[in-house]
Amino acid sequence: MSIRTVGVVGTGVIGASWTGLFLAHGLKVIVSDPAPGAERGLADYLHSIWPTLERQKISPHASLTNYRFVGANFKDHFANVDFVQENAPERLELKTKLFAELDAATRPDVVIASSSSGIPSSRFISECAINPARVLIGHPFNPPHLMPLVEVVPHPKTAASITEAAKSFYKSVGRNPVHIREELPGFAANRLQVALLNEAYSLVSRGIISAEDLDTCVTNSLGPRWAATGPLLSNAMGGGGGTDGLKHALEHLGPASRSWLEDMKAHAFTWTPKELDALSASVSEELRGKDTKDLERQRDDLLVEILSLKK
Amino acid sequence: MSIRTVGVVGTGVIGASWTGLFLAHGLKVIVSDPAPGAERGLADYLHSIWPTLERQKISPHASLTNYRFVGANFKDHFANVDFVQENAPERLELKTKLFAELDAATRPDVVIASSSSGIPSSRFISECAINPARVLIGHPFNPPHLMPLVEVVPHPKTAASITEAAKSFYKSVGRNPVHIREELPGFAANRLQVALLNEAYSLVSRGIISAEDLDTCVTNSLGPRWAATGPLLSNAMGGGGGTDGLKHALEHLGPASRSWLEDMKAHAFTWTPKELDALSASVSEELRGKDTKDLERQRDDLLVEILSLKK
Repeated sequence: MSIRTVGVVGTGVIGASWTGLFLAHGLKVIVSDPAPGAERGLADYLHSIWPTLERQKISPHASLTNYRFVGANFKDHFANVDFVQENAPERLELKTKLFAELDAATRPDVVIASSSSGIPSSRFISECAINPARVLIGHPFNPPHLMPLVEVVPHPKTAASITEAAKSFYKSVGRNPVHIREELPGFAANRLQVALLNEAYSLVSRGIISAEDLDTCVTNSLGPRWAATGPLLSNAMGGGGGTDGLKHALEHLGPASRSWLEDMKAHAFTWTPKELDALSASVSEELRGKDTKDLERQRDDLLVEILSLKK
Repeated sequence: MSIRTVGVVGTGVIGASWTGLFLAHGLKVIVSDPAPGAERGLADYLHSIWPTLERQKISPHASLTNYRFVGANFKDHFANVDFVQENAPERLELKTKLFAELDAATRPDVVIASSSSGIPSSRFISECAINPARVLIGHPFNPPHLMPLVEVVPHPKTAASITEAAKSFYKSVGRNPVHIREELPGFAANRLQVALLNEAYSLVSRGIISAEDLDTCVTNSLGPRWAATGPLLSNAMGGGGGTDGLKHALEHLGPASRSWLEDMKAHAFTWTPKELDALSASVSEELRGKDTKDLERQRDDLLVEILSLKK
């Protein structure tokens, strides 16, 4: 299946970022969004990210103008799309209706992927009359035009060939898809993120470390390590590598790790107003006098450079 | 206080790596280790890391030979050191005796920092007769010649001026020290690491994602993000930045985060042999056919490049 035209539904940051990525890879995009002002917002966002995409010189066919905005009316335009990336609001009723319409409006073999982070696709395919087996989650890490991760999460009746087709397509636009085999809450990346964050919230709200030092701690240790090597491979290499590396590492590190986990459980962040205030106060202190727009530009420039090193 | 000569005790990877870092910054180092073969092992390790340190062109006075190995006999050589970095084995009795001897062998105003990750310094200063207030933890992220983080953890009676002096010294050798205000188990970086790892172990041992995909997931999302911007600042920027950014982000993300945390708690990794076997099997599959030495070289090269981007 050759994919030349992608249908994008929804032009919030995620849908607009996907659109930019697809255009940069030389694809044609048909974009639908019923919201007033969506067309203007999309054009502005695409202009703002295009220089970053151009620096990556992704495809000789890349063109900022190779898209068509069709408002609410995807029904008349999606008969010829080869892949759909849906980015509508996270409301079950809305998605159920939308997927029934997408199922009816597209060729029956076309993959329909949802960017949803919160609702597994099995919950919104109930009205798909044609082929619910071509629906799955393709959840990006925000913003998708910069971050390579896509979590591909089939529902129990998604066809295996559809999962493979989605992974191939994401690879063809420079992403690194991973396969999540069950529709669990938060998938993988968000669960891992929240696991670390909740301990960070605890340490800062208890006054053990300032928010600024907590961020310095991560950007100077775990962040660079995990940009270079994943946590499990790092573990296994610490255990001497080889196929038994992880076993050796866990024999060595397990007792200490488990005692830390016990202490963390005993002092877990419980989201009380008092804890939230202490946490917010320290983060506000870190942000004082800083310009968020400047920080975002610096972060995005650094991200682009780190990710290009990894290629 | 000008620091020209550092005393290093212990030449495992951490002590040897510290030695290389100090030499690269033009300092003189007196190295003590009672183990047979330690002198040879140190020389070999220093030779292996020197090209990496030279690429960073750290000091015009950097010299691979500017150290003296004194075996077990630091007592006769530490009277003139200006800072001590201790890296002996993690055994309480050994450290208690060692710190009494270091306290007696050095000038009373010299900072004595321990690289210990597992034993807080309040537990091994009981025999220090001269000045236990100059003892603290200076815990690096391994290996210290590459990773900038140092966790500075005073004990309740460490002088505030000593904590500041230790932070200044670590900054002078290009590290980014953070201040941990309580002697809690695992300090900060290891706790944050274990929080994420334990969820990774759960996801892989339950077969929800392969070890290889879990690592791909982190190296393509959280790792690069946290190399560029710490987790709390990322949160706050996601919430629109400004001093109330974190509050807005948590109002928006809190409910989902808390439901994921509940699900994670219900399916936490419990370190049973069956779970460990499933986890190890998937990591072994990831490592099959890969050369650990190659992987380490690639990782270290990438780390050096990422960290130099951040400067």
